[in-house]
Amino acid sequence: MAYNYLKKVNDNPAFLKEMSYAELECLAKEVREKLIDTVSKTGGHLASNLGVVELTIAMHKAFDSPKDAFIWDVGHQVYTHKLLTGRFDKFDTLRQNGGISGFPNPEESKHDYFAAGHSGTSVSSGFGLAEAKQMAGDDSYSVVVIGDGSFSGGLVYEALNNAGRKKCKLIVVLNDNEMSISSPVGSIAKYLTRIRTNKVYYKAKNAVLDVLDDLPYGESVHNELTTLKRAAKDYIYQSNNFFEDLGFQYMGPVDGNDIKALCRAFEGAKEFDDRPVLLHVQTVKGLGYEPAELDPSQFHGISRFNVLTGEPISVPGKKNYSDTFGDFLCEMAAKNDKICAITAAMSIGTGLENFSKRYPDRFFDVGIAEEHAVTFSGGLAKGGLIPVFAVYSTFLQRAYDELVHDVSMQNQKVVLAIDRAGFVGEDGRSHQGLLDVAFLRTIPDSVIYSPSSYEELGLQLQKAIDNGGRVVAVRYPRGYEGYLPKGYKAVSDPVSIFGKKTASVSIVTYGNIFSNACIAKEKLSEYGIDVKIIKLNRVWPIDELAVKEALKSDTTLFFEEGIKSGGAGEAFGSMLLEHKYQGDFAHIAVDNTFVHHAPISVLLDEYSLSPQKIVEEVLRRV
Amino acid sequence: MAYNYLKKVNDNPAFLKEMSYAELECLAKEVREKLIDTVSKTGGHLASNLGVVELTIAMHKAFDSPKDAFIWDVGHQVYTHKLLTGRFDKFDTLRQNGGISGFPNPEESKHDYFAAGHSGTSVSSGFGLAEAKQMAGDDSYSVVVIGDGSFSGGLVYEALNNAGRKKCKLIVVLNDNEMSISSPVGSIAKYLTRIRTNKVYYKAKNAVLDVLDDLPYGESVHNELTTLKRAAKDYIYQSNNFFEDLGFQYMGPVDGNDIKALCRAFEGAKEFDDRPVLLHVQTVKGLGYEPAELDPSQFHGISRFNVLTGEPISVPGKKNYSDTFGDFLCEMAAKNDKICAITAAMSIGTGLENFSKRYPDRFFDVGIAEEHAVTFSGGLAKGGLIPVFAVYSTFLQRAYDELVHDVSMQNQKVVLAIDRAGFVGEDGRSHQGLLDVAFLRTIPDSVIYSPSSYEELGLQLQKAIDNGGRVVAVRYPRGYEGYLPKGYKAVSDPVSIFGKKTASVSIVTYGNIFSNACIAKEKLSEYGIDVKIIKLNRVWPIDELAVKEALKSDTTLFFEEGIKSGGAGEAFGSMLLEHKYQGDFAHIAVDNTFVHHAPISVLLDEYSLSPQKIVEEVLRRV
Repeated sequence: MAYNYLKKVNDNPAFLKEMSYAELECLAKEVREKLIDTVSKTGGHLASNLGVVELTIAMHKAFDSPKDAFIWDVGHQVYTHKLLTGRFDKFDTLRQNGGISGFPNPEESKHDYFAAGHSGTSVSSGFGLAEAKQMAGDDSYSVVVIGDGSFSGGLVYEALNNAGRKKCKLIVVLNDNEMSISSPVGSIAKYLTRIRTNKVYYKAKNAVLDVLDDLPYGESVHNELTTLKRAAKDYIYQSNNFFEDLGFQYMGPVDGNDIKALCRAFEGAKEFDDRPVLLHVQTVKGLGYEPAELDPSQFHGISRFNVLTGEPISVPGKKNYSDTFGDFLCEMAAKNDKICAITAAMSIGTGLENFSKRYPDRFFDVGIAEEHAVTFSGGLAKGGLIPVFAVYSTFLQRAYDELVHDVSMQNQKVVLAIDRAGFVGEDGRSHQGLLDVAFLRTIPDSVIYSPSSYEELGLQLQKAIDNGGRVVAVRYPRGYEGYLPKGYKAVSDPVSIFGKKTASVSIVTYGNIFSNACIAKEKLSEYGIDVKIIKLNRVWPIDELAVKEALKSDTTLFFEEGIKSGGAGEAFGSMLLEHKYQGDFAHIAVDNTFVHHAPISVLLDEYSLSPQKIVEEVLRRV
Repeated sequence: MAYNYLKKVNDNPAFLKEMSYAELECLAKEVREKLIDTVSKTGGHLASNLGVVELTIAMHKAFDSPKDAFIWDVGHQVYTHKLLTGRFDKFDTLRQNGGISGFPNPEESKHDYFAAGHSGTSVSSGFGLAEAKQMAGDDSYSVVVIGDGSFSGGLVYEALNNAGRKKCKLIVVLNDNEMSISSPVGSIAKYLTRIRTNKVYYKAKNAVLDVLDDLPYGESVHNELTTLKRAAKDYIYQSNNFFEDLGFQYMGPVDGNDIKALCRAFEGAKEFDDRPVLLHVQTVKGLGYEPAELDPSQFHGISRFNVLTGEPISVPGKKNYSDTFGDFLCEMAAKNDKICAITAAMSIGTGLENFSKRYPDRFFDVGIAEEHAVTFSGGLAKGGLIPVFAVYSTFLQRAYDELVHDVSMQNQKVVLAIDRAGFVGEDGRSHQGLLDVAFLRTIPDSVIYSPSSYEELGLQLQKAIDNGGRVVAVRYPRGYEGYLPKGYKAVSDPVSIFGKKTASVSIVTYGNIFSNACIAKEKLSEYGIDVKIIKLNRVWPIDELAVKEALKSDTTLFFEEGIKSGGAGEAFGSMLLEHKYQGDFAHIAVDNTFVHHAPISVLLDEYSLSPQKIVEEVLRRV
């Protein structure tokens, strides 16, 4: 395809204002083509992006970006916006190392206001921005785009509650595609369904009012009619829905794949200058690419695929950590009917699909609501169950206080199955799982396991379920088991030592970095350097044996795929000093930064955690 | 008062079932008397407890505690429940060291299910418990009591969304006292007002339906009438309010100070066994004690007072850290019109009352919604303002991910004025501010200041506003400035050294513990022991100078009024070791536990942070 329109737009979305609706339809066609073509090669979010092509075009037609600010909730639906704001040329680099990000990124473009990745933050951010503009006398708009899935999270309500009835130029576009990440969860979805079918309702309301107005007061045939008329009017002049109750002007629902209808709606929305507007639009996920329309969940976040068939081009069905976790949990649940599983709209991503089918009564998908997931789990535990909350590391950050207040302080046990712990690769900054060890350690009676193999994951999950602790986490990386040395066997001890006890260099680590340390150890032995690896199977609390073993060596290097400040390595260093260690110590971890998107192997090298970098660090030290 | 009825009930609330309504009224009178009498001596929460006397009595009459579980949101309204469940005798020890807690406490009584203190967790906990009961075939009830103020927080919606339409024995009592902690904030309050006045609305609805049913279909005089009738019926058979949309059976509003009406409502609520119930009750805060009725905010959380006049028996108007912060911020705002202040329903507690009056356009009370407060502040910052979010340390825990994702990752600066950092005393476990340093340190480009005097608070707040960093916190304790040595002067350097540089013992600390360290230093000099105090004015990042100074001494002791794991002391130990420190090191902090309620001075001693304990620790080490 020649992409004539896209090339003309280039980095000037204002150009859309001069295009006719017919031309905009052609543009939409080009955008779709480009999305399918690129994502089939790079992987990424497809269904959601195909759904908002017209919406994004209409926004750029109706508003003036970047003067008017577009704020994208979660941000995975921002591809069309990127194509229309100077990133068409670089679009093939999507999610690649050094290429453009799959999420909004203010460092890439002045058209991107807020970086994103977590759900439900957009209304708060957008309202803050709108208030600041208002104070500065700036009359431009803040336009938020938020999916119906995000409405299962509480932050949106806090923001709506606060913004309602405020005089500010805030337009919230509720992008209703009848789909959160897995499937609609809970009552909000049903509520939206009700609004969606409300054409009848609005028509009925208008019909009643019309008829009432036509009927003459006082001289009606039936006395009842007067009563009826008054009562009906009282009743009907209630606000139409929750959004209006909150003080938003509600508009909709509008066909979100109809550019003209959208533009008309936006012009209508601009009319309200005494309150914020909630514009309800309905879009079709995956629109224009049949495989994605038929199975939007599959095409939410995907790897490379064959455009013709929609089939993934993937490594032959290798089992990953998520699958392994799901299998183990099913096995354990078969033997222990107290075990139940909780997910926050991530049953596929966390490997719980089988569990949800085999044990539907013990499976709880609570929506994109990590805070509630944790507090609810605390309640289940109080009721005698063993809740296992499977969650990505980055999203668990949202439930820090709930872990403190609603689990640990209650003296209850909740097991956390933390997926995507460590580097996650292409999803980038907002999705890296680098903080969990640091923030979990601060919680009284927390226990953190970190397997280096699938077998170990099973042992640790069993321990987490059977043994003590309150917030008990098993954290494992995205993807696959790494290299395991000859003779490796998973054990349930808190510490394992690999290498000669008398080695002068100790490498302390956990999780997948163990594999890299093993490779480094073998290379170093070629240089005649003996290294022992102190592998923390249980990262927290740190076992005394690990400290004792390190005390025997001259050099102790702690390699950690996590944040340095507050990381386990810091505790280890402090413990060594309290034990009067006289040797060299260094803590190599991610220091005071967010980590960009790139393949995990690249990131491991960049942050000095690859086998080669471990070798170099040791050579520098001895 | 003889408290005859209370004594009869003692620890058997089932006794209430045998009492007549007249007797229950007498009981209510006794409870009120006891509440006023005790709280006037111990301090505590009064207005909210006076409001729920009848509600609590009716709950114990209608349900069987502890078989049926009562779950109290926030938990500050639990005094009547305590009086009726075996804690009448100990009630005078309320909030005293070793006495009963001011919040629910499962360790005190089997009638207390969940400990509490933070807002909005009860529906999630209660729903979890109800699901667990359901799975176990246990048909007892879970009864949640939650105030309207908690509805400005998002967690409640996550829980309602998840629980709606589920078959479980969950009854949520919405205790609507038209009052969050300060004043009703936002749109939810207005929504409740609408429901409250809905008697008209429900009557109208019923009138319309009655009339419609009386009118014969088909043979009506007007053709319009048939249309009208159909349309009106369509319209009216929509659900009544948001709670019903969410799949709850809504009941109410009921007079929450009328025991008989409440009991009738509870019996009605039990009828619904296919869905959870939301029972809306209206109570009067402070009922039965005129000063509290007239000024419920003042009597929300109070110190000792004169029962006859309602006047506080207090230390003569000494300025505390909160007041000082408020004054400084007003001064700075006068000079810089970008400064704005945000509170999560704590304008009085955080000292922002004056600011809110002087700069109403730059003051934002967002409701009890710390997550939104932070994300909203990030939006304000993006719009060019300097947001200062004043918040208690314990409540800031709720916004951990928002600090990460919506401030730091956005490369925006939000200033945090963290009040009640460290021990808080009588409010106990859920309110201690012991985690902030540990969790803030994990956030890229965070800066943490901790003043030891009011003067220093001013300097640090100015630095936080003027200088770099993203999440920039100034954390200060509850209460007053401590002891300051002769010649002390606040400086804006990141580190201050007190004592001879050549001293063999270094005490490293920050905040109020500096005062205790100074007293200890003076005592130790009497023993001929020279100590230098390395005071971290900026706790994080730790300045190299602090490490260098410690390296010169033989013994370094880090005293920290905060959690040990992840605390600044751990980082300091690890840094010392990375600098090849050969001396003794110890990190004295709160280790792996929640801290009970007791006067701060008692807690400082218990956790080895009092002057005497610091002296003892040094003597043990040298």
